[in-house]
Amino acid sequence: MLSTAGRLTRFVYFPHRHLISLSLTRSSSSIVQSSRLLSRCSAMESVTKSLASLSLHPTLVNHTGTNSPATWRDALTTSADGPDSFELIKTLVYKPKTAKTATPVPVVVIAREAASVNSGAIGKNLNLKDLRLASEDLLKDFFSLDKDSLSPLALNETNFSKVVTVVDASIATISNPLALHALSSSATVFLSSSDLLQYLRNLETENAKIHELDLQNLETAAPAATSKPPPKQKEDARIEGSVQIAVGVKKEVDFSTWYTNVLLKADMLDYYNVSGCYILKPWSYSIWEEIQKWFDAEIKELGVQNSYFPMFVSSKVLEREKDHIEGFSPEVAWVTKAGNSDLEEPIAIRPTSETAMYPYYAKWIKSHRDLPLKLNQWNSVVRWEFKNPQPFLRTREFLWQEGHTAHLTKEEADVEVRQILELYRRVYEELLAVPVIPGIKSEKEKFAGGLYTTTVEGFIPTTGRGIQGATSHCLGQNFSRPEMFNIVVEDPTDPTNQRKIHVWQNSWGLSTRVIGVMVMVHGDNQGLVLPPRVASVQVVVVPCGITVNTSNETRSKIEGACDELAKTLKKAGIKVKADLRDKTPGYKFNDWEQKGVPLRLEIGPNDLAKQQTLTVRRDNGVKSAVALDNIASTVSQLLESVQNDMFKRAQETFHSRLKEVTKWEDVVPTLDSKNVVVLPWCEREACEEDIKERSAKASEPTDERAPSAGAKSLAIPFDQSRWTAIEPGKTKCPACGNDAKRWTMFGRSY
Amino acid sequence: MLSTAGRLTRFVYFPHRHLISLSLTRSSSSIVQSSRLLSRCSAMESVTKSLASLSLHPTLVNHTGTNSPATWRDALTTSADGPDSFELIKTLVYKPKTAKTATPVPVVVIAREAASVNSGAIGKNLNLKDLRLASEDLLKDFFSLDKDSLSPLALNETNFSKVVTVVDASIATISNPLALHALSSSATVFLSSSDLLQYLRNLETENAKIHELDLQNLETAAPAATSKPPPKQKEDARIEGSVQIAVGVKKEVDFSTWYTNVLLKADMLDYYNVSGCYILKPWSYSIWEEIQKWFDAEIKELGVQNSYFPMFVSSKVLEREKDHIEGFSPEVAWVTKAGNSDLEEPIAIRPTSETAMYPYYAKWIKSHRDLPLKLNQWNSVVRWEFKNPQPFLRTREFLWQEGHTAHLTKEEADVEVRQILELYRRVYEELLAVPVIPGIKSEKEKFAGGLYTTTVEGFIPTTGRGIQGATSHCLGQNFSRPEMFNIVVEDPTDPTNQRKIHVWQNSWGLSTRVIGVMVMVHGDNQGLVLPPRVASVQVVVVPCGITVNTSNETRSKIEGACDELAKTLKKAGIKVKADLRDKTPGYKFNDWEQKGVPLRLEIGPNDLAKQQTLTVRRDNGVKSAVALDNIASTVSQLLESVQNDMFKRAQETFHSRLKEVTKWEDVVPTLDSKNVVVLPWCEREACEEDIKERSAKASEPTDERAPSAGAKSLAIPFDQSRWTAIEPGKTKCPACGNDAKRWTMFGRSY
Repeated sequence: MLSTAGRLTRFVYFPHRHLISLSLTRSSSSIVQSSRLLSRCSAMESVTKSLASLSLHPTLVNHTGTNSPATWRDALTTSADGPDSFELIKTLVYKPKTAKTATPVPVVVIAREAASVNSGAIGKNLNLKDLRLASEDLLKDFFSLDKDSLSPLALNETNFSKVVTVVDASIATISNPLALHALSSSATVFLSSSDLLQYLRNLETENAKIHELDLQNLETAAPAATSKPPPKQKEDARIEGSVQIAVGVKKEVDFSTWYTNVLLKADMLDYYNVSGCYILKPWSYSIWEEIQKWFDAEIKELGVQNSYFPMFVSSKVLEREKDHIEGFSPEVAWVTKAGNSDLEEPIAIRPTSETAMYPYYAKWIKSHRDLPLKLNQWNSVVRWEFKNPQPFLRTREFLWQEGHTAHLTKEEADVEVRQILELYRRVYEELLAVPVIPGIKSEKEKFAGGLYTTTVEGFIPTTGRGIQGATSHCLGQNFSRPEMFNIVVEDPTDPTNQRKIHVWQNSWGLSTRVIGVMVMVHGDNQGLVLPPRVASVQVVVVPCGITVNTSNETRSKIEGACDELAKTLKKAGIKVKADLRDKTPGYKFNDWEQKGVPLRLEIGPNDLAKQQTLTVRRDNGVKSAVALDNIASTVSQLLESVQNDMFKRAQETFHSRLKEVTKWEDVVPTLDSKNVVVLPWCEREACEEDIKERSAKASEPTDERAPSAGAKSLAIPFDQSRWTAIEPGKTKCPACGNDAKRWTMFGRSY
Repeated sequence: MLSTAGRLTRFVYFPHRHLISLSLTRSSSSIVQSSRLLSRCSAMESVTKSLASLSLHPTLVNHTGTNSPATWRDALTTSADGPDSFELIKTLVYKPKTAKTATPVPVVVIAREAASVNSGAIGKNLNLKDLRLASEDLLKDFFSLDKDSLSPLALNETNFSKVVTVVDASIATISNPLALHALSSSATVFLSSSDLLQYLRNLETENAKIHELDLQNLETAAPAATSKPPPKQKEDARIEGSVQIAVGVKKEVDFSTWYTNVLLKADMLDYYNVSGCYILKPWSYSIWEEIQKWFDAEIKELGVQNSYFPMFVSSKVLEREKDHIEGFSPEVAWVTKAGNSDLEEPIAIRPTSETAMYPYYAKWIKSHRDLPLKLNQWNSVVRWEFKNPQPFLRTREFLWQEGHTAHLTKEEADVEVRQILELYRRVYEELLAVPVIPGIKSEKEKFAGGLYTTTVEGFIPTTGRGIQGATSHCLGQNFSRPEMFNIVVEDPTDPTNQRKIHVWQNSWGLSTRVIGVMVMVHGDNQGLVLPPRVASVQVVVVPCGITVNTSNETRSKIEGACDELAKTLKKAGIKVKADLRDKTPGYKFNDWEQKGVPLRLEIGPNDLAKQQTLTVRRDNGVKSAVALDNIASTVSQLLESVQNDMFKRAQETFHSRLKEVTKWEDVVPTLDSKNVVVLPWCEREACEEDIKERSAKASEPTDERAPSAGAKSLAIPFDQSRWTAIEPGKTKCPACGNDAKRWTMFGRSY
C-alpha cells in the first residue's frame, strides 16, 4: 500500500473504465461517513418516499463499508438480513467529449455487475464521442456521492433530465433481487428488476427517456462491424484495454481488491453465504489436486499411510494439552445441537487433530515394533477466526493434509521433520514456482505445545510482507509423556527390559493457503498467471484470422488444424484445450489470460500455409512462431522454460528484498520499503516482543486485510551462509545489544 | 439371526475358546437384568467395601448392556463418565479334565482383551490337562454371573481358594486405567493395574496364590518347544484353531459381533470417543482410495469437475426445500458457538449439499452455454443418527462423493443418471466383487425432494437383508423452479428468445458404506477377504520351514528368495509385501488371513530347491505349487481368477436368494428363509406401507442392529426379463389384488 500518512480519501483516476478508491483505514472512513451522513439520510429519505409513492417498500440492509464489487458482495452475503441470492447492479458515469464552455451531459450506465461495458459501442449507439469515466468531482457535482455509493436511485426528478440514462436490457431478465447502493457504500436496497425499471420509467419525461441497450450484444457486435480483420497489433492493443476491465484495479495500487478480483475473474473461487467460507471452484481445486497427487506419492515413499479420523473432538480430549488448547480455543466451533435435541456436552469441530488422534496412538503403540507409526489425512479443519477473512489465507474452514508420526528416537523424528519440510519446499518451488526459505521458528512463533517448528517462509513482493508457507513440527515427548497421552514402549536397547521410552512425535501440515500465495506472487494486471505444473489447462489453442470474408473451407481447415494440434499435444501428455467457441479471438485471449493459462497457440490462415503456430507466453508475453513439425517437444520445452523462468524471477525478487540490517535505525525504513530484514538476533523472546512493538509504532497505519503491522520473526534460516558470519560475543543484536546468535528474518506478515 | 420366538437367554457353546451369547432383544434382556439386579447389587456392594478397605475408591460407570468386547468398548467410549483411554480386561474361566466324581477346580485367566490365550500352554505350565472353556452352568455355580458380567472382581474371599487364578504378567505394564465389568455387563469399574494386583494379592492365602504368567511368551514359546518343524498339515490344522481365536465368533451365528470383530482384527477401523464416529485406519482407507482413483477418472471422462463447497450451511438455505429438509432435519448437527461467543444464528453442518450449492448454480448458470454444469466433491457429511450406529453402514460422519449436475433437457439428465449408476454398479461388481441389481426406487423410497431415484441394491446373504448400495437421483426441475432456486436459462431453440427453461438437475453419491458391504459379503470365519483390485497388499510372501536346525546360509537364502520374489512382482505392478518379521509362519499366516490378503506365497527350502513357490488363495484356500519362472504373469492371472471367482460365487448366492413370489402367504416364509422376494407389484404407496406392516407383524422380533423388520421395497429392477412376463390387467399384486405393474424386490434391509 502507498504509505502516505494522514490521507483521508484519495481516488486515483484511470482513463480506462473504472474509478479506483484506495482502501481506507477504518478510522478515516468513519470520519468521512459521519460528515456525510446527514445529507445522505435525507437523500435516501426522499428516495424512500418516491419508492413508496410507487407502492414499493424494499428491504434496506446496513452493512460494513465497501469499496469494490467483492467487498460489497461479501458484506451482503455475511449480513443476516438480505436475500440469499441477489445480483449486484453497478452504476457507471461517463462524460462525453464536450466543449469546455458547454455543460457536460453525463451518461449514466446501469448494468449488472458482471457485464463488460464497452463505452465505445455505447457512445456510437448514442451518437456521443469519446466517453470517458467521469471524475470524482463530476460525481459530487451531480449526485453528491462518491463512486462507491452511486446507484440508480441517485437519479431523481431533479437530475434525470440532465443526464443520459442507459439501462442494460438484460437487467429485465434477472429474476434474483437486485442489490443497489442505498446512496451509501454501507447500505443496500434490494429491488426486483421490474421494480427498478418502474422506478426509472417513472422519472421519464417527454424529452428524457431511458435507453435500453443490449450491452452484451453491443460488445460482441463491435468487432464484427469492422469490415476487415483488424491488424494483429491493433487487436493486441484492444486486449490491453479490455484486460483492465477484467481485473479492474492494479496490483500495485490496491492489492487486496486486486487479489479478490483475480480470484473471481479467474473463476477460482466464489463467496459463500456463511462468512469466512469460500467455494473452491474447479479452476482452483484442480491445483490442489495436482499438489495432492504429488505430495501424496512422496509421503507414501516415506512409509506414510493415509487414514481418516472423525471431524469431531470431545471437549475433554480437546482440552487435554494446556498450551496447545490455549493456542486454538478462541477459534473452536462447537456443535451443541442435533436435530431438535441439545447434546449432553458440546462437541468441537477439529481445529487440528493432535489431541483427537493421540489417545489412539497410545492404544495402538504397544511395542517398539509398532514404530514408527506414520499416518496422514487429507481433510478440512475449522478455525473460527474473527479477524477479516481472506480467501485461501484466512478462512474459517480450509483444506489441508495433516501428518502425525511417532518415533522411537529423537534423531529419527528430527530427520523426518526435515524430510517433510523439504517436500513442502518442493511443493512451493517446483510445483508452484514460488520461492521459500526453510528455517526454524522462534520460541514465540512455534506451534503451541510442540518442541520446535520448522517452516518454509514465503514473501509477497507487492506488500513486502512475509507469509508462512507450511510448517513441520517436532512435538518432542510433550504429548507422549505420562501425564498427557502416555504413549510408551519398552526400550529395545535395554537388556533388563525395565526402561520405558515415551515416543517422539511430529506433526506437519500443508493447506490450500499455498494457492493464495501462488496467486499473490505470480498474478499480474491481466489476472492469474499459472505455473505449468499445476495448471489444469497448460496450453490453449485459438483459431485466428477468421473474418466474414473467410471461406467456409478455410474456416474449417483452421479449426481442424487447431483440433489436430490439440490432439497431438494431448497424446504427448500435455493438458491442452482447443477453444473453438463462437467468440472473437480477442474475447478468448482475454478469457484465458485472466485464467492464467501458461501458453497460447494461435493458428491463422498464414500459419496454416507455413505449417506453423504462434506461441504466446502468459508469464512474459513473449511471442514466437514455431513449426508444427515436432510441436509436442517444442511445447514441452516451452512449458519447462515458463516454469523455470517464473521461479527464477520470483526468486530474484525475494532475494533482492532480503536485507541484512545491523543497525536498529535501519529496521523500520527497510521494512517500509517492502523488505524483509535479516538481523543478527539474540533469540530472546522479550527482544522479539520489543521489536514487534517498536516497529509497529513507527510504521504506517494498519491495513485491516494484513493485520500485523509490527515486524515479527519469520524464521531463522537453516542456511546462514548467505550473510556475514556472526562472531560469538562480538556481533550484537541490533535491537537490544545482547550477543547475536543467528541471522533471523523479521518482517511484517500475513 | 435364528428365529426362535420366546427365548430369553440362550448360550451356544463352542469348544474352541469363547462362550458366545446370542444377541438378546432389548425387552428380553431387561427381564433378565431386573431378576438378577438385587443379588448383583449386593455382590457389588461387598466388592466396593473390600476395595474401600484397601483405600481404593474407583470410578463406576453405568452403560448400555454389552455382549462382546466391541460393544463393551463402544459403550464405554460413548459414555461421558469414564476415562478417555483405557484397556479392557477379559476374564476367561477354564475347566481342566477332572474325574466325574471330583469337584472341578476352575482356572480363572485374567488378561488384556487383546491377548491371545493359549490354554494348552497354560495347562502345561500349571500341570493341568485339557483346559476347556467352562460352561455357563459352571460360571453360575461359582460366580452367579454370566460370561458378559464376569470380572476379576468376581473373585472374593469365599471363592478364591476354590479356583486357580492366572494373571497375565503384561497387565502390570499397562499404564491406562483397566476396565473391569462391575459384576454386570452394563456397568464398569476402572482400576489402575497396580490397584487390581493389590486387590487380587489381598485375597491370597498360604495355599492359594495368583499365578503371574507371561501369556504372550507362553504362546510364542509353544511352537519353538517342538524340536522338529511341524509337518505342513499339522501347521495348517493349528492355524485353523488360532484363527477362531482371532475373529472369535462365527459369521452365521452372531453376525453383528462377527462384523465388528472382523473390522477390528483386520485393523480396518477403531472405535472413537464420540459416539457413532469411527476411525478409518489405513487398511480400510486404502480401499476408499482405490475406489476414489477409479471413480474419479471415470467421471472426469464424463466431463465432471471436482470442487469444494464449505461444510457449513446457513439455516435459511438449508430449510429452503420443504420435502428435502423434512427428510434430513432430525439428523442435522448445529454449530451454535465459536470460542466463547454464541453465533447470531445456528449454522448447520451439511447432511448433503443440494441446498448449499444450488444458490450458486443459479448465479453461475446464466445461459444455455453454461450447461451442462457438472460438479463433484469428495467430502464428509454429517447425519446425527440416533439409531444404533454401525461402522461404515450407519455412522454420524461419513466420507462420500456427491455429484451435482445441471442440464438443459430432461433427456440429457436421464442419460447421465444411468451413466453414473452404471459406474456405481462397476465399483461394486468390478472393484469390490459384490453383485448388485440396478433399478429404480418406489415413490416412497425415493430421495426427498427429487423426481426419481435409481439405485444399485446389494444383498447380505448371512442375514438375508437387502442393502442400498448407492443412488443416482434425477431431481427434475424441483430445485430449479422459480419459487425455489430459480436456475433458469433462455431456451436456445426458441427463435423469439422469450421462452425460459428451468434446468434439469441430478445428484448422485457413493459413500464409504461400500466397504462395509464388501466386508459383510466376502468375510468368513477367518476374517476379512479382500478382492485383489482394492487390496493395498495383494500378495504376501512368507518364508517357511526355517527351524533351529536351519543353517544361517539357508535361512538367508530363503529370505533372500522371498525378497527377490517380492521385487519381481512389484516391478510387474503387483502390490506385494515380503513378511520377514521375526515371527512364526503360523503367526504370519493368521495375521494376513484375518487381514484378507488375497494371495499368500510360501517359500521353504524344498521350494527353493525346486525353484517354485506354494500359492495359497485366501478366498477358497486352494494351494498350488507354481514355478518361479514367469511368476509375475502367473500371479497376475491368479489374482484375476480370485477376483472373478469371488464375484461369481457372490452373484450365484444373490441370484439364488431372489425369489419370485406371487402369493401373499409365501412372502413372510420366504423372507424368513433369508431371501429377497420379487413381487409383481401394483406400485401403490399404500400397498407398500401395508406390505411393510404385515410382514413386520408376522416375523421374528426386531434385531436392534438391523432395524427394519418389515419388508420394504428395495428396487424395481431395470431388467425385468428375469421373471415371468407381467400380463397387463391379468397379473395381480399379491399384496392387494390390484393390477401388477412391474416386478419389484421387497426385503428386510439395512
